[in-house]
Amino acid sequence: MIYFDNSATTRPYEEVLETYTKVAHDFFGNPSSLHPAGKQAERLMNQTREMAARLLDVKAKEILFTSGGTEGNNLALKGTAVRHRSRGKHLITSEAEHPSSFETFQQLEQEGFEVTWLPVNKDGVISLVDLKEAVREDTILVSLIHVNNELGSVNPVKEAGNFLKQFPKILFHVDHVQGIGKVPLRIKDSGIDFCTVSGHKFHGVKGTGLLFAREGIVLSPLFSGGKQEHQLRAGTENPAGAAALVKAMRIHFERSAEGNRKLFSLTDELIASLQEIEGIAVNTSANRAPHIVNFSVPGVKPEVLVSAYGEKGMYVSTKSACSSKEPEPSRVLSACGFNRDRAASGIRVSLSYENTDSEIRTFLHYTKEIVPSLLEVVSK
Amino acid sequence: MIYFDNSATTRPYEEVLETYTKVAHDFFGNPSSLHPAGKQAERLMNQTREMAARLLDVKAKEILFTSGGTEGNNLALKGTAVRHRSRGKHLITSEAEHPSSFETFQQLEQEGFEVTWLPVNKDGVISLVDLKEAVREDTILVSLIHVNNELGSVNPVKEAGNFLKQFPKILFHVDHVQGIGKVPLRIKDSGIDFCTVSGHKFHGVKGTGLLFAREGIVLSPLFSGGKQEHQLRAGTENPAGAAALVKAMRIHFERSAEGNRKLFSLTDELIASLQEIEGIAVNTSANRAPHIVNFSVPGVKPEVLVSAYGEKGMYVSTKSACSSKEPEPSRVLSACGFNRDRAASGIRVSLSYENTDSEIRTFLHYTKEIVPSLLEVVSK
Repeated sequence: MIYFDNSATTRPYEEVLETYTKVAHDFFGNPSSLHPAGKQAERLMNQTREMAARLLDVKAKEILFTSGGTEGNNLALKGTAVRHRSRGKHLITSEAEHPSSFETFQQLEQEGFEVTWLPVNKDGVISLVDLKEAVREDTILVSLIHVNNELGSVNPVKEAGNFLKQFPKILFHVDHVQGIGKVPLRIKDSGIDFCTVSGHKFHGVKGTGLLFAREGIVLSPLFSGGKQEHQLRAGTENPAGAAALVKAMRIHFERSAEGNRKLFSLTDELIASLQEIEGIAVNTSANRAPHIVNFSVPGVKPEVLVSAYGEKGMYVSTKSACSSKEPEPSRVLSACGFNRDRAASGIRVSLSYENTDSEIRTFLHYTKEIVPSLLEVVSK
Repeated sequence: MIYFDNSATTRPYEEVLETYTKVAHDFFGNPSSLHPAGKQAERLMNQTREMAARLLDVKAKEILFTSGGTEGNNLALKGTAVRHRSRGKHLITSEAEHPSSFETFQQLEQEGFEVTWLPVNKDGVISLVDLKEAVREDTILVSLIHVNNELGSVNPVKEAGNFLKQFPKILFHVDHVQGIGKVPLRIKDSGIDFCTVSGHKFHGVKGTGLLFAREGIVLSPLFSGGKQEHQLRAGTENPAGAAALVKAMRIHFERSAEGNRKLFSLTDELIASLQEIEGIAVNTSANRAPHIVNFSVPGVKPEVLVSAYGEKGMYVSTKSACSSKEPEPSRVLSACGFNRDRAASGIRVSLSYENTDSEIRTFLHYTKEIVPSLLEVVSK
């Protein structure tokens, strides 16, 4: 198997599963319980939170553990909009967000908020000029994806955050799910109020994530109940999930510098070779993260390509896994201005530090076989 | 260690951790991905959902996997209230609910809903007469806890559900977190529209749960985004968590009949012996689940008792873990009409099928030592 769908999910590291199992077994107490088994689990949660904070260079009280990226995005966006609507009802985001942000903004529109949808260029990236023009007296929230989940392109979130600092009423959320470790981003230097992270995108386990929420910020919680997670996310803490997330993040960061250099070299090779194959249009631009390459084979349905690759044991994806079962052209590629044929035939190759040069060469070898034969079928 | 805090959380079964690890490792694909690793994970999710449905005697399409009991309660309650507010804004619940329901209703009150808080008797149980009187033209939701998490008393949810069947506009939610497997409840025979279950209360892992949502019912989701979980709960599915939950539920149900007989015999013995100790007032009544016994030592702070038991290696709790760090008297015991001294000194002993008669005897032995000596300190 050649697994090139790491932006959908990754295989958990063995060490991560060991951490999960050890904590679930040895620290099974409820961290909210007052007896020693509870206190022991609470100490572990505190240590885990502190380690997460150190890795992200933020404070422990700014880390909320969640069930994943979708929860993080929903909590930051709905929590802010609902809590601060008395200040204003104008929100800003882009046309190229992940479904968990995009559909949240659509829901907020239905509930009476006004959303400015910033356009994106061919790279799926917003313009700071557009952002500056969009800001109004009643704007309370701006949300941007850091690394686009379909294209791998990089939004200027640091510049956006620094611009937004002059508007203390506006909270700034970054969807960092694809970017973490892959594209440098110092949360504290970037005017960021909320930052969403998901564990299973870097060899952690599913059902784990965290939300950075800047100290002093108030939110309307999605889950009411107990006082867990600084009263912003009720529910019994999941020490095993949190420890597994932080373990994966630590390994991910340790491997980042060398791993990203290697990934750039692999994807440079991949892009250069794909561009030479007739019928292929590479959609990912030079402004990109190291691990994602998106290309189209206009005229060929992407499910057919995914299936042809699958038969050879190579796993790639169409758009985001969260919307892969919808037949429409990619919303992100359409927002970039690609025509329908191209937007409807996008293939995403997404790598992790585990992938190798030989896998890239095998993939290219078969691509040179598969693409012409499918195009021949189509042209008949 | 004698662990008597199983209503706060349980130690996961070894088989459950094995299932979790195996699925997380071998079926790591994203169930929404179109390639074979995704399809394989999707098949496993489908099988897991079907097994959950068989165990609960409902349909697979009626099972939503969640991150736990707090999410299940919040999703059912907020999702119903928000989605159906055009039909009416009147909600009914009781004064003795778990914080994740209780505080959700308080939040809904702040958002303009009107809540009738049914009173409870000494057992923490509502009266059907009160429920019948509370129902109005504009009632859209009734929610009741099945087995009270502090007292172990049993609400007449089947009778309530059957009464409510004559009001098709009213949806009926049951918080089944403490009841599942311990007190018989056939969802399909009881007029139930939503039923919340949490995995870690029966030796599953934390961060897992399910919500039964009757076929055809619509909800406003807490998480917008992808189309997972019948479009009611966006976010990458967690096959390992779901499989672990269902594995734990299967083992739990296999052990239920014999386990509950054993638990009743242990708790009968416990209650009878506690009643003979001077200074102890047993709060749990005869209308009870097999696994929870609540008693007070009026005059003694429950943290002091928990700590004294903890020093002997015996772990019990004060109120619900979700509110154990709040210094106030138990809201549930107060709602039952116990005076402040008694409501402020409640101790919960909660068992699982793993506990033994010898543990009960050890607990009673030390109780006879600890309680008189603490009472002596207090009376000085």
